[in-house]
Amino acid sequence: MYLTRLIYASSKTEHCTDKGIEGILAAAERNNPKYGLTGVLCFNRKHFLQCLEGPRDPINTLYQRISSDSRHSRVTLVEYCATEQRFFDQWAMKYVPDSKKMQTLAFRYSDCNDFDPYRMSAASALAFLQAVSSQ
Amino acid sequence: MYLTRLIYASSKTEHCTDKGIEGILAAAERNNPKYGLTGVLCFNRKHFLQCLEGPRDPINTLYQRISSDSRHSRVTLVEYCATEQRFFDQWAMKYVPDSKKMQTLAFRYSDCNDFDPYRMSAASALAFLQAVSSQ
Amino acid sequence: MYLTRLIYASSKTEHCTDKGIEGILAAAERNNPKYGLTGVLCFNRKHFLQCLEGPRDPINTLYQRISSDSRHSRVTLVEYCATEQRFFDQWAMKYVPDSKKMQTLAFRYSDCNDFDPYRMSAASALAFLQAVSSQ
Amino acid sequence: MYLTRLIYASSKTEHCTDKGIEGILAAAERNNPKYGLTGVLCFNRKHFLQCLEGPRDPINTLYQRISSDSRHSRVTLVEYCATEQRFFDQWAMKYVPDSKKMQTLAFRYSDCNDFDPYRMSAASALAFLQAVSSQ
Amino acid sequence: MYLTRLIYASSKTEHCTDKGIEGILAAAERNNPKYGLTGVLCFNRKHFLQCLEGPRDPINTLYQRISSDSRHSRVTLVEYCATEQRFFDQWAMKYVPDSKKMQTLAFRYSDCNDFDPYRMSAASALAFLQAVSSQ
Amino acid sequence: MYLTRLIYASSKTEHCTDKGIEGILAAAERNNPKYGLTGVLCFNRKHFLQCLEGPRDPINTLYQRISSDSRHSRVTLVEYCATEQRFFDQWAMKYVPDSKKMQTLAFRYSDCNDFDPYRMSAASALAFLQAVSSQ
Amino acid sequence: MYLTRLIYASSKTEHCTDKGIEGILAAAERNNPKYGLTGVLCFNRKHFLQCLEGPRDPINTLYQRISSDSRHSRVTLVEYCATEQRFFDQWAMKYVPDSKKMQTLAFRYSDCNDFDPYRMSAASALAFLQAVSSQ
Amino acid sequence: MYLTRLIYASSKTEHCTDKGIEGILAAAERNNPKYGLTGVLCFNRKHFLQCLEGPRDPINTLYQRISSDSRHSRVTLVEYCATEQRFFDQWAMKYVPDSKKMQTLAFRYSDCNDFDPYRMSAASALAFLQAVSSQ
Amino acid sequence: MYLTRLIYASSKTEHCTDKGIEGILAAAERNNPKYGLTGVLCFNRKHFLQCLEGPRDPINTLYQRISSDSRHSRVTLVEYCATEQRFFDQWAMKYVPDSKKMQTLAFRYSDCNDFDPYRMSAASALAFLQAVSSQ
Amino acid sequence: MYLTRLIYASSKTEHCTDKGIEGILAAAERNNPKYGLTGVLCFNRKHFLQCLEGPRDPINTLYQRISSDSRHSRVTLVEYCATEQRFFDQWAMKYVPDSKKMQTLAFRYSDCNDFDPYRMSAASALAFLQAVSSQ
Ligand SMILES: Cc1cc2nc3c(=O)[nH]c(=O)nc-3n(C[C@H](O)[C@H](O)[C@H](O)COP(=O)(O)O)c2cc1C
Ligand SMILES: Cc1cc2nc3c(=O)[nH]c(=O)nc-3n(C[C@H](O)[C@H](O)[C@H](O)COP(=O)(O)O)c2cc1C
Ligand SMILES: Cc1cc2nc3c(=O)[nH]c(=O)nc-3n(C[C@H](O)[C@H](O)[C@H](O)COP(=O)(O)O)c2cc1C
Ligand SMILES: Cc1cc2nc3c(=O)[nH]c(=O)nc-3n(C[C@H](O)[C@H](O)[C@H](O)COP(=O)(O)O)c2cc1C
Ligand SMILES: Cc1cc2nc3c(=O)[nH]c(=O)nc-3n(C[C@H](O)[C@H](O)[C@H](O)COP(=O)(O)O)c2cc1C
Ligand SMILES: Cc1cc2nc3c(=O)[nH]c(=O)nc-3n(C[C@H](O)[C@H](O)[C@H](O)COP(=O)(O)O)c2cc1C
Ligand SMILES: Cc1cc2nc3c(=O)[nH]c(=O)nc-3n(C[C@H](O)[C@H](O)[C@H](O)COP(=O)(O)O)c2cc1C
Ligand SMILES: Cc1cc2nc3c(=O)[nH]c(=O)nc-3n(C[C@H](O)[C@H](O)[C@H](O)COP(=O)(O)O)c2cc1C
Ligand SMILES: Cc1cc2nc3c(=O)[nH]c(=O)nc-3n(C[C@H](O)[C@H](O)[C@H](O)COP(=O)(O)O)c2cc1C
Ligand SMILES: Cc1cc2nc3c(=O)[nH]c(=O)nc-3n(C[C@H](O)[C@H](O)[C@H](O)COP(=O)(O)O)c2cc1C
Repeated sequence: MYLTRLIYASSKTEHCTDKGIEGILAAAERNNPKYGLTGVLCFNRKHFLQCLEGPRDPINTLYQRISSDSRHSRVTLVEYCATEQRFFDQWAMKYVPDSKKMQTLAFRYSDCNDFDPYRMSAASALAFLQAVSSQ
Repeated sequence: MYLTRLIYASSKTEHCTDKGIEGILAAAERNNPKYGLTGVLCFNRKHFLQCLEGPRDPINTLYQRISSDSRHSRVTLVEYCATEQRFFDQWAMKYVPDSKKMQTLAFRYSDCNDFDPYRMSAASALAFLQAVSSQ
Repeated sequence: MYLTRLIYASSKTEHCTDKGIEGILAAAERNNPKYGLTGVLCFNRKHFLQCLEGPRDPINTLYQRISSDSRHSRVTLVEYCATEQRFFDQWAMKYVPDSKKMQTLAFRYSDCNDFDPYRMSAASALAFLQAVSSQ
Repeated sequence: MYLTRLIYASSKTEHCTDKGIEGILAAAERNNPKYGLTGVLCFNRKHFLQCLEGPRDPINTLYQRISSDSRHSRVTLVEYCATEQRFFDQWAMKYVPDSKKMQTLAFRYSDCNDFDPYRMSAASALAFLQAVSSQ
Repeated sequence: MYLTRLIYASSKTEHCTDKGIEGILAAAERNNPKYGLTGVLCFNRKHFLQCLEGPRDPINTLYQRISSDSRHSRVTLVEYCATEQRFFDQWAMKYVPDSKKMQTLAFRYSDCNDFDPYRMSAASALAFLQAVSSQ
Repeated sequence: MYLTRLIYASSKTEHCTDKGIEGILAAAERNNPKYGLTGVLCFNRKHFLQCLEGPRDPINTLYQRISSDSRHSRVTLVEYCATEQRFFDQWAMKYVPDSKKMQTLAFRYSDCNDFDPYRMSAASALAFLQAVSSQ
Repeated sequence: MYLTRLIYASSKTEHCTDKGIEGILAAAERNNPKYGLTGVLCFNRKHFLQCLEGPRDPINTLYQRISSDSRHSRVTLVEYCATEQRFFDQWAMKYVPDSKKMQTLAFRYSDCNDFDPYRMSAASALAFLQAVSSQ
Repeated sequence: MYLTRLIYASSKTEHCTDKGIEGILAAAERNNPKYGLTGVLCFNRKHFLQCLEGPRDPINTLYQRISSDSRHSRVTLVEYCATEQRFFDQWAMKYVPDSKKMQTLAFRYSDCNDFDPYRMSAASALAFLQAVSSQ
Repeated sequence: MYLTRLIYASSKTEHCTDKGIEGILAAAERNNPKYGLTGVLCFNRKHFLQCLEGPRDPINTLYQRISSDSRHSRVTLVEYCATEQRFFDQWAMKYVPDSKKMQTLAFRYSDCNDFDPYRMSAASALAFLQAVSSQ
Repeated sequence: MYLTRLIYASSKTEHCTDKGIEGILAAAERNNPKYGLTGVLCFNRKHFLQCLEGPRDPINTLYQRISSDSRHSRVTLVEYCATEQRFFDQWAMKYVPDSKKMQTLAFRYSDCNDFDPYRMSAASALAFLQAVSSQ
């Protein structure tokens, strides 16, 4: 298991201000390239859906750090698997903020009016992330 | 089982006037968005074929209401399954009234001269609904 | 679609007394053979999981009657499909009341301590019903 | 088994004149639409290859009438199956008389210099009929 | 297509007396071995379900004779295909009259209380015939 | 995703004494049944390989607690997926201490002389855990 | 393509006396082991069905010699393919003369009353040869 | 087995002059159409690779004649199978003499610098023949 | 790629005496356990067929040492792949010397009278090694 | 097993100067065409990833020479298999030196910031080599 993909869903807590988001993205820019990590982070001011791609050890280390970060809670794995290729290799961490496009696609790939990543199957979540991060 | 699809066939009763159809569509516009439901409703003045997509609970609740609605009878499930993505996500309930196109496609996907959704397999019904609701 | 199988989950309401259960089973014995229906009904005093096998029309008619029966609520489809053969053809409606065996098997085929049929996939539900109704 | 497809091969007898062919096509135009039947009929003045699509009962009734029609003999089934969709839904009975194109395609899909539908597998026969009836 | 299997369903007419059945079986004993035909014939005094195995031409010739035999009507193909091996090679025509076992198995493989071969899929019909003709 | 399975590998730290192990097992006995969790824990005094089965939320909550437990480090996911059935449903947490059998099986399912769960594929790890916990 | 299997059918000519058969078997015993060839030869005094297993070159050389042997004619390939293992490795050339068992099995695997290997598909022929040469 | 394909490799002998090749092609033009045979013949002045398509009997008859033709030797089957359609139906026998294109393609589909059809798998040989005979 | 399997064939040289074989087996006993390697070595005094199972790096290191060992030549890979489980985990290197059983099995899984591992496909070689090393 | 593909990874040693690389490529130009070998060699001044395509024997001979070449070490097989067609047939040995494109693609197909062929699965390595050698 060399190249690994991990997708999780989580919920913003009150400790997460706009500064908090900036801090997350700054940390991702700072750390992810060092460890060969790439991915995408969706955020609609309520929930996060993040995909991490890269080596198995840094993915696990980072996931433990992320999953105990007080800026979100109910951190829940959606997919974890070996993979032949990255899908988000051009970004340390592509940030996808709330938008009409995101809402439209979230609705297509889930059973919810609002973006609720807890209610996406692994296949739906990956398809959603690929669609939402494409131009 | 998050995102769910339900397809059923039914037959108009005498209680269903033109007003009745308007009432159905108004109810769908009023209710479906509230519950994250989308779909398509075909009607040739004799039979209905409806697809409902969305969360499992509202689909079941609505199906029970619909199946006891006196405007139609012999309400019969054609398909019920989990699904990765919606096919009719742009409509609360796309309405497809009788037309030449509908007759042509109904004929291609069934063994009937007239549109008779009771005589479509689950695969034929879904293919028909996708074809008939496309531009 | 000749031979059809339908599985649903539901929850006992306060209107369902011991007599209520007896009434259900009596109705099943009275009606199901008339319509070529067979199946199994699991009940742990809280939830029902029922499988109905037989012709498509009576299955739909009965399901509409059952789904509006006040003795249970939150009636939710788990599986609906065509099938080559019946699995419960020896019973008008095999009744499986609460038992140690039922709890053990429910636990094996779901993520719950107690029997909660809403939390079984279609495949888990059918495997559970076959296991629990076998000698 | 709603939508059904039947393909058979047969051989013209001496009772089949040009008028005979006209009579066949007239009968097909007259009867097939009534029963929801569509199809294609290939004829090279020696052999017939016919595909019938539609409801199971009329297909069987018509096949019995056709198979005892004295204008041909050695009527032999090539394929009989349920199908999701019609391939010849635009024609009551598309007639494909002998032509260079028909000979070329018959040769590609069989082991014969001349069109001999007895020597086509079910898959070859369907592929041939689709090719020969396309523009 | 060398070895061929044909299964059909039909309904006894008033012209079919007990003598009629004897005549059918006598004809089968007399003719089928001559043409390399084997099979099984189920009869519950109302419907027939017959499987014919053997060479393609005699199967088609016999099917045309049988399908115009006035002792039954609504003769309807259930399956027609090439096959690697016979399943009923020990009998010119195994006769399976009505019995408790036949009813039990017919019920398992169809959606009917009574044996109704029109309501069996091709797979159900073959499985039923194998089960009912086994010791 | 109802029933979920998570497998991870980790390494004992110096903070993990014999008492530590007892504490882990006591916690598992105390907590896992409350949350519908079952599983197996292999330990060869150096590495852990643990499988957790049950509802998605408690599995994620417990995994976050476990992954920050100072008694082990380099906690690394091996598998995370939805599943139809539990394999270890008879145990709150079956404990498999070091033994000859464990060494033999670890060797069969990995490329290591000693039990090193970091070097097992997801399929090898599950096959190993099933073999080692069977009688 | 190392290990190769070739099956062919042919017809005895008048030049083939009993001595002829003995000569064939003597030749097979004499030559086949030299070239690593094994197989089975069925003969009902009218037709041959032979399977040759072994290296590609000797199989082709021998097949050319055999196919121009005047003791039979209409030599016709049934199967030619690479294979993982021999099925008749215990015999230079197992001889299976006419017998009740052979007739019964030939009938099961073909559409003929008598053993006619020209009318067996490749799969039927191999299944027949395995059945007929087993004890 | 109606439509059949046979591919073989062989080696030119000294008896094969330029006239010899002309004679082969003349024979093919003369005979193949009579028997419904089509195909392609590759020749690099050393080896032949030929594909024959058509009815089973003429293919076997011709193959026996060809395989005892003194203009080549080490005649070796590469593939023999039933097929749904011809690939070379526009030619009695398309002749592909040595060329740069042939060498390039032979190299892509084999492990040889020079065209050596003995060292092509059945799949490689067919892919090579399709590529080399396309415009 | 953790657990790896490598199979190769080779030929004894004159430098390989009986002592040579003893030396090989002694080296295998001495070294393989150190590196977690297991396997089987077949030898018929002419050819070797060896399977090595274990971690990827030692397999490659040992294969380089073995492939330049002067006791054999024409060392040729037969299979190299990742695998879920070892098949020969009970032996540092099971030695299978020439025997009747080995000859019989070599013949079944190859096109040769004598054991010639160069002429076994990867699948034949593994099946042969499993058969020959079983009791 | 005619056409064979072998992929390996290795690491440059200090003995490998720029001259060394030139020498490798000169040797490849000199030798590979003689033996029908083609392929691609990637080198980022630290690691090599090479694919060799061609006949089995020269591939094994060359691999033994290459794997004992002092210009690199830790030579490790990634894939070895039979194949229907070459992918790099236009080059004796296409050389792909370090470049931005190579880094981008290496990153997409592995878990590493830098090109590290030891951390590519067989499928990733082949996909990377095809992408990196395409125009
Ligand atoms: C939703 C979410 C996503 C995050 N994604 C990343 C990430 O991709 N990379 C990262 O280094 N930190 C990420 N973090 C922040 C980490 O939890 C942690 O704060 C950070 O890695 C600490 O980095 P530092 O040690 O460089 O300050 C994320 C946090 C949250 C809440
Ligand atoms: C064929 C048919 C389709 C219907 N589809 C919908 C629907 O998509 N959504 C909906 O809310 N009601 C639908 N209805 C109407 C329901 O049966 C019911 O009248 C309605 O949900 C009541 O809504 P209300 O409580 O807002 O008045 C349908 C009825 C029929 C007969
Ligand atoms: C959980 C549940 C299962 C039931 N199963 C059946 C059944 O299998 N057959 C049946 O006829 N009625 C069943 N019933 C009862 C029906 O809802 C209804 O009361 C009954 O069919 C009426 O029958 P009757 O018209 O003969 O009185 C069930 C009810 C419940 C609550
Ligand atoms: C080769 C052939 C194809 C035929 N196809 C059809 C057909 O598609 N539809 C049809 O009604 N009759 C067809 N017939 C004619 C029927 O055998 C029969 O004559 C006709 O259905 C009688 O129709 P009528 O009762 O309207 O006169 C065909 C006959 C032959 C010989
Ligand atoms: C349900 C049914 C099944 C029949 N099965 C056969 C059969 O297997 N073989 C047969 O020769 N005739 C069978 N027949 C009778 C044929 O229709 C026809 O009467 C008979 O083949 C005439 O034979 P004969 O020409 O020898 O008198 C069957 C008839 C019916 C109604
Ligand atoms: C290898 C390992 C496995 C563990 N397994 C479990 C477990 O299955 N269930 C559990 O509740 N705690 C488990 N723990 C302990 C938790 O990390 C934590 O200490 C415990 O859940 C706290 O329980 P408490 O809040 O009841 O004291 C495990 C710890 C380690 C190091
Ligand atoms: C049906 C048939 C099967 C044969 N099988 C074999 C065979 O398996 N091996 C063989 O050497 N010859 C076989 N022969 C005989 C060859 O055609 C040929 O006569 C023989 O190989 C000559 O052998 P000789 O050169 O040793 O005399 C067979 C012939 C026939 C007609
Ligand atoms: C490589 C090769 C390919 C041949 N291909 C054919 C062919 O496709 N058709 C054919 O009739 N003869 C072919 N022949 C020639 C036959 O062996 C034989 O000479 C010819 O069929 C005799 O034909 P004739 O009886 O009309 O003279 C081929 C010969 C060789 C050596
Ligand atoms: C056919 C063959 C198989 C061998 N198998 C092994 C083996 O499994 N393990 C091993 O260590 N050496 C094996 N060797 C011997 C090695 O080539 C080498 O001599 C040996 O590993 C040196 O070990 P040493 O450094 O401990 O002396 C084999 C040699 C041959 C010719
Ligand atoms: C990474 C690497 C790749 C090589 N690739 C090839 C190659 O494709 N062909 C080749 O002949 N030699 C190759 N060599 C060189 C061989 O190891 C060896 O030096 C060469 O084949 C000797 O050729 P010569 O005998 O013609 O001097 C390679 C060496 C290295 C280190």
